[in-house]
Amino acid sequence: MALVAEDMHGVNAVILERMQSKVVLIPELAGHLIAGGGKRMRPMLTLGCAALLGYSGTRHQKLAAAVEFIHTATLLHDDVVDGSGLRRGKQTANLIWGNPASVLVGDFLFSRAFELMVEDGSLRVLKILSHASAVIAEGEVEQLTTQRRIETDEEQYLTIISAKTAALFAAACRIAPVVAEADEEAEFALERYGKYLGIAFQLVDDVLDYGSEQDVMGKAAGDDFRDGKVTLPVILAYARGSEDERSFWRSAMAGERASDEDLERAIGLLRGSEALSETLDRARQYGRRALDALAGFPSSKAKSALSEAVEFAISRAY
Amino acid sequence: MALVAEDMHGVNAVILERMQSKVVLIPELAGHLIAGGGKRMRPMLTLGCAALLGYSGTRHQKLAAAVEFIHTATLLHDDVVDGSGLRRGKQTANLIWGNPASVLVGDFLFSRAFELMVEDGSLRVLKILSHASAVIAEGEVEQLTTQRRIETDEEQYLTIISAKTAALFAAACRIAPVVAEADEEAEFALERYGKYLGIAFQLVDDVLDYGSEQDVMGKAAGDDFRDGKVTLPVILAYARGSEDERSFWRSAMAGERASDEDLERAIGLLRGSEALSETLDRARQYGRRALDALAGFPSSKAKSALSEAVEFAISRAY
Repeated sequence: MALVAEDMHGVNAVILERMQSKVVLIPELAGHLIAGGGKRMRPMLTLGCAALLGYSGTRHQKLAAAVEFIHTATLLHDDVVDGSGLRRGKQTANLIWGNPASVLVGDFLFSRAFELMVEDGSLRVLKILSHASAVIAEGEVEQLTTQRRIETDEEQYLTIISAKTAALFAAACRIAPVVAEADEEAEFALERYGKYLGIAFQLVDDVLDYGSEQDVMGKAAGDDFRDGKVTLPVILAYARGSEDERSFWRSAMAGERASDEDLERAIGLLRGSEALSETLDRARQYGRRALDALAGFPSSKAKSALSEAVEFAISRAY
Repeated sequence: MALVAEDMHGVNAVILERMQSKVVLIPELAGHLIAGGGKRMRPMLTLGCAALLGYSGTRHQKLAAAVEFIHTATLLHDDVVDGSGLRRGKQTANLIWGNPASVLVGDFLFSRAFELMVEDGSLRVLKILSHASAVIAEGEVEQLTTQRRIETDEEQYLTIISAKTAALFAAACRIAPVVAEADEEAEFALERYGKYLGIAFQLVDDVLDYGSEQDVMGKAAGDDFRDGKVTLPVILAYARGSEDERSFWRSAMAGERASDEDLERAIGLLRGSEALSETLDRARQYGRRALDALAGFPSSKAKSALSEAVEFAISRAY
């Protein structure tokens, strides 16, 4: 954060300026989420990767803001899709202003993101981020079709999180070398870094959903459980469970066991089968792959910061 | 239609090819709406304007498909926002597959639209359509904030329909001269044509919502009434009404009078005050302005076809 603090001021200025509209509900609703304690992980990755490549211009600020707008749009739509009531420790926008407003303001931010990219003028950046956006939507739809399906396997699950989460992390990193006019090797390396970091990040999120207090996660623990989202911890516990336990998971994911006691039992089973600790092991492995992707870059403050970002993503679970 | 039939085959081929995804729910849901009897008004305008300018390439086919994807995405989201159950005479996607799937498939189509534009590679087209998309979302949000507000005046209403409907008509027309490398004058003339045609189209839609049988409109008459959408017919009837009538409109738009009998009374008041016929007069005026925008172009089959499109938009009400 310290490394990119100045650039981040620039990004925040673009965000605040460009979420404005004469339709007052738009900045009101968007501001609730954007100002509301987000970590700015993705734009920070764009800035960090640009710093790694010694980029000294300001183009990346506008593009980092575009990345954050895409992310915010997906959060607004996700909360509608999941019927969520709490995000980052606050009431969700859809709970306050209703689903219609959240859908439409998400559309606005998404369009605005593309306007920012067009102003920058790089077709290559536009290609990376429009493709990432389509992949994210595909991943979200696939997650929807696997919801409440206990048969979801690990491979399908990894496909889903690679799309719905890791694709934007990867794109946020990959646009930096485009702007810095670095070579293709740097582009692919940073894309890999972002992708693996994104997978690690999502795996940790999935663990936190079963393990954390509300004030750590900023949303209610057990959301995935109640929504019947078959995440890796559940896949592992189900695979290893006794017939009785498998029967529990089947009915729980089908939505027939969603009480606090059921959640308690689920957490007990996840701990007993080491499903949570093994999911964290996988997260660490992906984290290591993210670090490996940085190997070709010389040591620098930026490289250290990008390495620390991996630590941060994983350490949230401890 | 005859004029652009061959090009439209090309557009339909792009649409069918590019709505595919390995996530089967996406083409299934998108296909329901895309294959389901849409008039393809907007892509046809792109093709018609290109023909007017003597353009003989194929780039406009991909871009016309992008326009239709944006339109389809907004329809999917609109039906979620309005809670609609019927569109083009068929059950809406959100009724069949649920709101979450409609929101996410809309996002997918929107992203895919931008991918198509990026493949074409014109930053100017990208600017026109990303800006139009943001304006559409602004118009939709503004409509949401005026919903159930009988105080909405004609000016605000025109601002809303210029944004939510006319902006995409205008953009669909304006991208044709960009592709055909015509001069700026052609660009602005065709943008005006599209804008005024779009306003006329929406005014007629608003009349049809009070006047047509279900099989003409393809959606249930009275939707706007029950949703408390303060359209021009209502604004005119309210302005001219007796105290008793104004009181009726206030409670009707507030959602307190939504029965079939209330709708009957509303239609009676709209006819009695000539609000419907006057709305159609305005539509005709905008139609004339659309025709005037074509004045600078020499006579051709394409010009006749674009003039007929104006007639078509208005004649739907008769």
